[in-house]
Formats: sequence, structure tokens, C-alpha cells
Amino acid sequence: MSPFTGSARSTGSWDHLRVRTEDGVATVTLDRPDKLNALTFGAYADLRDLLAELSRSRGVRALVLAGEGRGFCSGGDVDEIIGATLDMPTGQLLDFNRMTGQVVRAIRECPFPVIAAVHGVAAGAGAVLALAADFRIADPTARFAFLFTKVGLSGGDMGAAYLLPRVVGLGHATRLLMLGDAVRAPEAERIGLISQLTEEGGADAAAQALARRLAEGPALAYAQTKALLTAELDMPLPASVELDASTQALLMTSDDYREFHASFTEKRPPKWQGS
Amino acid sequence: MSPFTGSARSTGSWDHLRVRTEDGVATVTLDRPDKLNALTFGAYADLRDLLAELSRSRGVRALVLAGEGRGFCSGGDVDEIIGATLDMPTGQLLDFNRMTGQVVRAIRECPFPVIAAVHGVAAGAGAVLALAADFRIADPTARFAFLFTKVGLSGGDMGAAYLLPRVVGLGHATRLLMLGDAVRAPEAERIGLISQLTEEGGADAAAQALARRLAEGPALAYAQTKALLTAELDMPLPASVELDASTQALLMTSDDYREFHASFTEKRPPKWQGS
Amino acid sequence: MSPFTGSARSTGSWDHLRVRTEDGVATVTLDRPDKLNALTFGAYADLRDLLAELSRSRGVRALVLAGEGRGFCSGGDVDEIIGATLDMPTGQLLDFNRMTGQVVRAIRECPFPVIAAVHGVAAGAGAVLALAADFRIADPTARFAFLFTKVGLSGGDMGAAYLLPRVVGLGHATRLLMLGDAVRAPEAERIGLISQLTEEGGADAAAQALARRLAEGPALAYAQTKALLTAELDMPLPASVELDASTQALLMTSDDYREFHASFTEKRPPKWQGS
Repeated sequence: MSPFTGSARSTGSWDHLRVRTEDGVATVTLDRPDKLNALTFGAYADLRDLLAELSRSRGVRALVLAGEGRGFCSGGDVDEIIGATLDMPTGQLLDFNRMTGQVVRAIRECPFPVIAAVHGVAAGAGAVLALAADFRIADPTARFAFLFTKVGLSGGDMGAAYLLPRVVGLGHATRLLMLGDAVRAPEAERIGLISQLTEEGGADAAAQALARRLAEGPALAYAQTKALLTAELDMPLPASVELDASTQALLMTSDDYREFHASFTEKRPPKWQGS
Repeated sequence: MSPFTGSARSTGSWDHLRVRTEDGVATVTLDRPDKLNALTFGAYADLRDLLAELSRSRGVRALVLAGEGRGFCSGGDVDEIIGATLDMPTGQLLDFNRMTGQVVRAIRECPFPVIAAVHGVAAGAGAVLALAADFRIADPTARFAFLFTKVGLSGGDMGAAYLLPRVVGLGHATRLLMLGDAVRAPEAERIGLISQLTEEGGADAAAQALARRLAEGPALAYAQTKALLTAELDMPLPASVELDASTQALLMTSDDYREFHASFTEKRPPKWQGS
Repeated sequence: MSPFTGSARSTGSWDHLRVRTEDGVATVTLDRPDKLNALTFGAYADLRDLLAELSRSRGVRALVLAGEGRGFCSGGDVDEIIGATLDMPTGQLLDFNRMTGQVVRAIRECPFPVIAAVHGVAAGAGAVLALAADFRIADPTARFAFLFTKVGLSGGDMGAAYLLPRVVGLGHATRLLMLGDAVRAPEAERIGLISQLTEEGGADAAAQALARRLAEGPALAYAQTKALLTAELDMPLPASVELDASTQALLMTSDDYREFHASFTEKRPPKWQGS
């Protein structure tokens, strides 16, 4: 637990998500299987608030984002979200779209790796949630569709026009965001959109296994690796090299670095503290 | 048509390009087949001016750039351009190189998708024109050669050293720009340099089909997707997320977004207005 | 030789590296084969100083970085470096990590192409040295491991969190830097981490052949191509296009550009001066 705790209490139960934390691994499951886990206003808000809470607590060392039922997430609910936004005043439209973007920023900025376990459809906002994760583990049924233009909106939703070119290159990203067509698992693997392809039905288990490995590893080293990857996309080379130097100098004073050397000398596996 | 028209008249005929506009699709054909469509000063100037005009008029919703004859474009003409630049005063050298760069900026910044239809050679400036397009549709005869160093010049011509690493990654981009060797269609597909590989002789038809699809689609959504992809290559994540939010809030007030919801509810295909 | 020589003498012999220069090609060999060429403080310092000297002298037109024995480089020496850093004062930790970063910056900023010839292991700092090179030529025994987290440190070491996403995309880069697992030659080729895959044992010869080709080519054109690729990763499109224009205007006044035109007209191969 972080010693830097203020007055805010942790939320006892989450109404719009299923959340379980076990030995440092948080599993967040989108759980509206009858609607292909379509996102509601409440689900976005819960994702935003949950990630902020978990980032403060430091009890979580890896997070799995998964979908219940036949698919990962079909995106924003057509009735509850698209329908509702048609009558929203300007300021509220902006509030809503900022909120969805805050979820993506929270995924990129939280101090633990996020693993999306994808089977079936990952569409619209669902595709962007997976895109924002550090790892995308998918089974052969997975299909990603950044289908925003198909509903008359911009393909640049929730940071997609920033993230996707940096993951698959500008050519593929333009095709995917402009046309909104589905990308199936083999193509997703070929263009670098997924981190690991499993056998059918294997994405959840593989994501849990990776989360377990990360949770038992050097958490501070992982957190800083993620932070630097995120920050240095937006930094020039000389500043990045300087940031790496100060980060590495700091981590050379850490328990885990000392432990690595001791374990290596004693020819035994290291016992990571994450500090 | 845009209501924001000033005194400038549209150019009736283009001397250095073949231009046809039909139902919102502009087709620009490089048409010096005996010279493999080598570019002249006039052709660069026409591309620059044409794209500016089409961007103002709003009558165009997609543009195809194609080459007549055996190939797409062999680049700047050795006699008319390289020969002429040898005797140019400094200011004129700069004017020429700025003009070629303005063509690339115009392709990236115009409010409609640009599709390069590539068969045969796309060399030098021809390769960069294709690179600047949003889509590169190529047939198996296509070969791209960023051959600037082979004429003693920098591989960073017309934004190529900016664009190519963002399309195929820094490793491939370094190899292609430094050595100038030809990349054939299978490798171009493998490294993400082309958007779609067709059968032999099929690039033009596939480009027209895609242009037709885009011209009949939600033009404003496509325009903003392109604008965000271009802008967010140069923006940090937090600002990109904010730009996405305000863009999406704006598009949620558009006719096409409302039309999507109506068509979905009525179980019919949407009729896009592009507004 | 550069005419802009000051008081600094060139270093006669390098204690921690094997250095040979022949007809414009410098070959730098990591030469501690009994330790898989593990890097020492002296080797980092020599790389930093050597690259600075070679950059000043202008006698070198291409550089090959190779490893003696069974592999390319196993990274920082566990005893001599990791052990030593455990007792270092803060300022010295920073000095050390800045020095390693300076080597990467020197590789990216020197005015000649750098070719890493990789066989066997390229681990930790060894993987980053290869990553910073302009070309990575590898044989099928090559395996890259950015194993920093495995010793409790950040995967963002020596600019790796800046460079790797720009070479292989953010998805693969996250996986490689976070987990530190080895990437073998076929995967390295598939994701764009290597420039050329040779037959077994062929990396050194292929690297020398490429270096020879580059050294006999238009050196100024190569130098500017490299400089623009490095600079424009950190620049927006409009500024990049302007930099390209002024660079190209400058190179259009060069001997080599004039020579290209003469050789083309006379139907003979060009004789490059590199000026």
C-alpha cells in the first residue's frame, strides 16, 4: 500500500464493471454479455475512477481487462450512448468525450502494465481500450474494428489517431481508422497490433499468466519501463537519453537491483520486492 | 461547394496534368508516358496549385493519383530538372525544393483522402508522392525507389525522412532512404508501405473503387480522421486526447451522426450527406 | 580530413576496443570473447571518445561495429559494472548512465552510417548499441534481449524506450522492453528489428560489404540522409519539409550532384567525391 493516502476512501463496489484483485493482479471484466459488453456512461466513468484508485493504492502490480461472453467489447452502446448524445448540450458532449479520453490516458499512465485479453469483437471504443493497453493477447476469434467513421464520427476517438500510427505505422493506421473495417487476428498479428496470439479460447488464461509473471516480478522496474515508453513517444532523443540516465541511476539504488546481483552471485533466482 | 469563396477563379485547364472530376472523385493522372511520367517544374507547380484549389472548393471528396503508361512516376526529370538546377542561383534552388515540399504538405493537409494507384516504377519524387498519400494501392509490378542518394542528394526529400519512418519504422526507412534500392511489391506489403495489393493491372480500378466508396461515405468524418492522423503525429498524447474530444463533440452535432442513428433504428443503410 | 582541427590530438591506441580503419571504413570490434564481449567502464568511455574523434576527422565514411567470438555483446559486465554500481555515490551513478547514453547519441549523431554486425547474443547494452546503429545485419544465430528488467532496472536504458518504438512500433517495443525476453533472428526480421538477414556466419562479411559500398558512395548525401532521419523523428511535418528543402538546395550545389549529371549524360558510372 502507498503511504501517501489522503482522505479519499476506496470504492467498495463497482456497479458497472466486475472487479477482482488477487495477489497483486486486478482483473476488470466488462460484463454485459447480452449486449456484447457495450459500454455505458457508467462503465466509462467506472473505468476512469477505478484506474485512478488503483494507481494511488500501489497494491496492484498488473491489470487484466477482459470481456464476458462472446466478445471483448462492442464499443459505446448505440441506444444508451449514441442515442443520448443526439440531444446533449455542447458542454456535455465535450464532457463525455473528455471522459472517454481520460480512460485511455489512465491506461497509459497508470504505474502497472495493463493486459487486454481479446476474443471476438473489439469494436469502436472497445478497440481503443485494447489499443491503449500495454499488451494485447488475442485468440483467433478476435477482430478489431475502429468503426467510428461508420457511425459518422472521426476515427480519431479517445487518442486512436495518436496511438494507432505509433503501434502499426501510419499506412495501416490510416486504412483502419478511415475505413473502419474489421481486422482479424492473423492480420492483427502481422501488422503488430497484438502482442501474443493464443489458441482459441486461450486469451484469458494467457493474460492471467502474463499478469501473474509481471506481478511476481520487479514491479518498480516494470512501472518505470512503462512510464518511459509513454513519455518518450513525446520527447526528443537527447531529452529521452537524459531521462533514461536519471531513471536508471535511481533504480540502481533500488532493493531489486541489489537483489539481482546477490541472487546472481549466489546462483539462485531473485526474490523481487518491487521496490 | 464551399460558401467561403473569394475572388480567385478556378483554373479551367491544367497544362501539366490530366485532371478529371466525377461525382466527387478527382482523378489526377501524370501523363508523360514516354518519359515514365517524369515530373517537370510545371507538373510540381500544377500539383501544388490544383490541391489548393480542390481543398477550397469542397466539391471533391476523394482524389486518385495515377500514372499513364508503363509506370507511376519516375521522379524529377533528369534533363529538365536536374540539368536545370545545376545552373540555378541559390534562392531559386530553395524555391524549387520548397515547391516540391509544398506538394507533399498539400497532400497531407487537404480535406479529402488521397489514393495513389501505383504500377511499375515509383521512383524519387514519384515514390514520395505515393508515400504522402493516405492509401497506396499497388499491383505486383510496383516498385518503390527512394533513389535520391543515387543522384548525390539527400534521402530526406519532400518530407521523406519524416514520413517514411512513421510508415515503415526507422530501420526499414534508413535502409530505403540511405541506399535508394528498389522495394518490390511483396516487400512493400510486408513492411507496411502499401495499403492494398491487387492483381496485375488492377491498381487503377481498385483505387477508383475505394475513391467511390469514400466519396459516397461520411466525408466530414473522413476529413477529420485524416486531419487528426496528420496533426497527432506531431502532438503529445494528452493534447491529442483533448483534440479528439473536441473533434468528436463537434461531429456528434453533425447531420451524418444523426443519420447513422436514424438508419440504425430504422434498420436501413445510412444516406451520408458529408456534413 | 577536416580542415577544422584544433589542438586535440587523435588517440593513438584504444585500450578497450579493437579499432581498424581502412579506405574510409572503420571497424570497431568488441574484443573480450571469453566474457561474450561484456562491456566495461573503459569500453563505454572508449566508444564515446572514439565516435567523437571519428566524427571530427571526416576520414571515416562508414563504421562497422562487431563482436569477437561467440556473440556480439552480452551487455554490461555483471561483476565489473553491476557490482561496482552497488556502492557508487549518486553523482557517479548519474555520470555512468549519462556516459552510456552519450554512446547512443554519438552513434545516432555521427556523420557516417553505423552498421552493427550481429551474431549470437546482443543483450542489454549490447542490444541497444545495435538498435542505435543505422543498419543491423544479423545471421540466424542472432538473438536480441533487452533484458534490463531482468536485473531490476528500467527497460528504458540508453534511449531504448525512445528508439525501439520508432523501429518496431509501440506494441512490440513494450513487450520487448517490459519482459526482456530474447528475440531470435526470424522474429527480429519479421518485426523490422534487423535490416538484413545473412546466412550463418555471414554477418561480418555482409557488414563489411555494405560499409565498402557506403564508403565508395556519395558520403555527403549519406551523412545528410542520416542527419535528417535522426532530426525529423523529433520535428513536425512542416518544419521537416522546410529542413529537407534547404538541405536539398545545399546538396544541389555539391560536387557529387554535378558529377551524377555528368556521368548520366556521358553514360558512365559516377565517381563520387563525397563532397
